[in-house]
Amino acid sequence: MSQKVLFRQLFEKESSTYTYILGCKRTKKAIIIDPVDLTVERDAKLLKELGLTLVKALNTHVHADHITGTHLLRAHFEGLQTGLGSANTAKSDEKFDDNFKIEVGDINLEVRHTPGHTNGCVTYVDHDGGAAFTGDALLIRGCGRTDFQEGCSKTLFKSVHDRIFSLPEDFKIYPAHDYKGQTSSSVHEEKQFNPRLTKSETEFVDIMENLGLAYPKMIDKALPWNLNCGVEPE
Amino acid sequence: MSQKVLFRQLFEKESSTYTYILGCKRTKKAIIIDPVDLTVERDAKLLKELGLTLVKALNTHVHADHITGTHLLRAHFEGLQTGLGSANTAKSDEKFDDNFKIEVGDINLEVRHTPGHTNGCVTYVDHDGGAAFTGDALLIRGCGRTDFQEGCSKTLFKSVHDRIFSLPEDFKIYPAHDYKGQTSSSVHEEKQFNPRLTKSETEFVDIMENLGLAYPKMIDKALPWNLNCGVEPE
Repeated sequence: MSQKVLFRQLFEKESSTYTYILGCKRTKKAIIIDPVDLTVERDAKLLKELGLTLVKALNTHVHADHITGTHLLRAHFEGLQTGLGSANTAKSDEKFDDNFKIEVGDINLEVRHTPGHTNGCVTYVDHDGGAAFTGDALLIRGCGRTDFQEGCSKTLFKSVHDRIFSLPEDFKIYPAHDYKGQTSSSVHEEKQFNPRLTKSETEFVDIMENLGLAYPKMIDKALPWNLNCGVEPE
Repeated sequence: MSQKVLFRQLFEKESSTYTYILGCKRTKKAIIIDPVDLTVERDAKLLKELGLTLVKALNTHVHADHITGTHLLRAHFEGLQTGLGSANTAKSDEKFDDNFKIEVGDINLEVRHTPGHTNGCVTYVDHDGGAAFTGDALLIRGCGRTDFQEGCSKTLFKSVHDRIFSLPEDFKIYPAHDYKGQTSSSVHEEKQFNPRLTKSETEFVDIMENLGLAYPKMIDKALPWNLNCGVEPE
């Protein structure tokens, strides 16, 4: 990570979600990526201890496995702006087009649209720090499922190859989830060892069609709330 | 972390243990700190994918909550040396005196004896990378219990203040455990916000004497195995 940016990775164990904090050391303004409702108090306390003011709460996509913490964070940080990729229909203060540049103090993130797990997924790329926050598009030795929320395995294959694997080999990969206790990877590693995305497109599509995964237990609650920025719909 | 060293943090969820890998990019030799038996296959696979040869498997102390993975790692890496602080009576290939310098390629670790959670606890300090692997001596906003394994809260208070809080403020703290999804801290943060170790020695001792913790569920198995380098005693 850049020396100008304070970085922290946090884990929410119910949904195995990683939340990331990036804080500008100069301006003390901060961004949070993929906050979870259950850990908002922990994250808000840490931000305040670090002397940071949270100005943006971003999601990589509309999550189906947990309720976003963006709404609850507003109670701690007045003026907080929520953000999401522009291909989403969900409520959000900001909607980022492909290649949009987010700037908060010395934190610079490029938004790359990486649909496939959902049609609205984005990857936030920190070029200064050499890191990509890939959401569920690319997981460590895996990837997000493609059988709901307008998911499409062909689209995901193209997104990962064109928009993530094209980054420098030593860029770190920070995903939205891990279920095996792994905390980070690199572009180099995933290009070499990802058991799905090292395959041909045809093989990848075949793998994704035959995962036989159960219906997500949280989806019927999480989607309507997350489409409403983490607030219970009326 | 130093640019010369490949660093990876890994989590074992049964005992909430963090395992750390440090790999020298030049010589491809690696050190692992606090490996767990249950995740040895994951860790060995990752080391091999990263092109690393594991030469040292270190423990910060004789753990009471899980069985060390040091012994099982030998099956994957011939010639692997296990290491532990010299105040321990446990079996180990190497026993490190206070201030001993471990060198593996471009990885340099200073061993600091930090007793109190157990009488044999050490902290491994990476001065080049600005990080300390504190085991159970110092946890994020907490510390290890002091009511078994010759634990002593007065000794722990002195260890943390004299040997960890004396490090530069921006040094990262990587503990052996976290139960709240936090992955790292800093000397600065713990000196300011640790709810126990910011107190006076008298208050700290009082807190530690009144934790009312349950008897550790794994201790009767873990201790005899770990005193025998992770092998079932005869």
